[in-house]
Amino acid sequence: MTRRLLVIGIGAGAPGHLTLQAIQAINRAEVFFLLDKSEAAAELVAAREAILAAHRRAPWRVARLASPKRRADPHIHMPRIHDGAAGTPARETTYRADVADWHSARAALLAPLIEAELPEDGVGALLVWGDPALYDSTLRMLEAVRATLPLAIEVIPGISAVQALTAAHGLVLNEVGAKVTLTTGRRVLEDFSRDGGTLVVMLDDGTGLAALIAREAETRPAGAPPLHIWWGAYLGMEGELLMSGALAQVGPEILRTRADARAARGWIMDAWLVRQT
Amino acid sequence: MTRRLLVIGIGAGAPGHLTLQAIQAINRAEVFFLLDKSEAAAELVAAREAILAAHRRAPWRVARLASPKRRADPHIHMPRIHDGAAGTPARETTYRADVADWHSARAALLAPLIEAELPEDGVGALLVWGDPALYDSTLRMLEAVRATLPLAIEVIPGISAVQALTAAHGLVLNEVGAKVTLTTGRRVLEDFSRDGGTLVVMLDDGTGLAALIAREAETRPAGAPPLHIWWGAYLGMEGELLMSGALAQVGPEILRTRADARAARGWIMDAWLVRQT
Repeated sequence: MTRRLLVIGIGAGAPGHLTLQAIQAINRAEVFFLLDKSEAAAELVAAREAILAAHRRAPWRVARLASPKRRADPHIHMPRIHDGAAGTPARETTYRADVADWHSARAALLAPLIEAELPEDGVGALLVWGDPALYDSTLRMLEAVRATLPLAIEVIPGISAVQALTAAHGLVLNEVGAKVTLTTGRRVLEDFSRDGGTLVVMLDDGTGLAALIAREAETRPAGAPPLHIWWGAYLGMEGELLMSGALAQVGPEILRTRADARAARGWIMDAWLVRQT
Repeated sequence: MTRRLLVIGIGAGAPGHLTLQAIQAINRAEVFFLLDKSEAAAELVAAREAILAAHRRAPWRVARLASPKRRADPHIHMPRIHDGAAGTPARETTYRADVADWHSARAALLAPLIEAELPEDGVGALLVWGDPALYDSTLRMLEAVRATLPLAIEVIPGISAVQALTAAHGLVLNEVGAKVTLTTGRRVLEDFSRDGGTLVVMLDDGTGLAALIAREAETRPAGAPPLHIWWGAYLGMEGELLMSGALAQVGPEILRTRADARAARGWIMDAWLVRQT
């Protein structure tokens, strides 16, 4: 008798991103744990409820988790509170410890909630934006819960923001014979290189992009091919924004568009990629 | 009046990977272009036909493309014919030119097929394994077709083998504050580094993995943390294989399992990832 939790990727925003496997999983669970936080919470909780209303064939229960405060955690999939650029090894160690602390703090709240709301032979679910494997904290948090409460965990993959971005732009992520690097806003300068390949950035509040624009303006080697950027926000949702072009020209415009959209809507979820062209 | 082509990601193998968006797209198209090649073709064509039979509400037509021969192209999503390790800049240039030639050769066959089979105001579709954005040649080939035949192209993302792999192992792809690198079998030694992060490898016929095992055995720095591998084949399909563990121990076993499975089934589709633990 072990409680079972389904971690269900529901896609990047479009209701059509939902997979048949996710719908089947939604119909196996009896309780849905909602962990939302942030200014985007209301809109995203509503989107999740719309998914349940559309695809769940039986009544369902919802259990909500109040989130502990944390001053900075870009590994919360949304919204991303920026923690500045990646720093010295010591700062990085502190950063990782902070993130781990935050996972533990949430796990300490989540474990009793699961224990109370889910029968010992029950199946619960968490609906995760995008793919649970990519820059999302749910699985790490459940790993921490498992330290005190036995759980069987099953993961259902979902369409990630990266995939929504490339599909919207009709792009192939990789160039022929070249790698693709996925990273976060705070590691852009560290992980970008001119050795070819594509850099994909998630969890950027704009400072990663601003830093790359500045560095390109200052230090692009003479004759090096310019960078091209493809950006998208609210991918697959109403109000989707798409922009692309030469980084030097379009980059600053993206930053303005991003700031305006965030101010108007109260939150933003975006992703971008760059490569030499 | 422009012919429209839907490039539909159908997931990594599990019928449940199909998204609602993909099903909707399947029902918008009147002709399905099948481009399969290789020893896996029969099984994979049957899988595609099962998807159409299950989700297509009206009759459909299929148009098949004979594939030109090419001695080596790891960018054909399946099966991957290995082209050896990445080489000198000159060899890399030759390699890229070969791939481009092959895309042109296929495009030269595909353009008249589309022109003949799809009315000028018609909607056609290509069903792509995994995600059309990730190490798949369909979009590049259509780009080449567009040089001679105007086309409107729409991409529907699909669950990739990488996502099926992480979901099956219950893994988070990224470590906290670390990058993720996606690459191909032939670039493993070039793109692997000990600076943290996760290396994900697709399109490897086993030689990339063998090379990494050998290099780890020879040159792992004293005190460096060992590598851990997570591998999967036929992900989401009948006969799914999953293995994980320390690379030095499990790696050779994976190579044996892979060779046996390929011999028994006639083809294999797999993916793996490594990181320090």
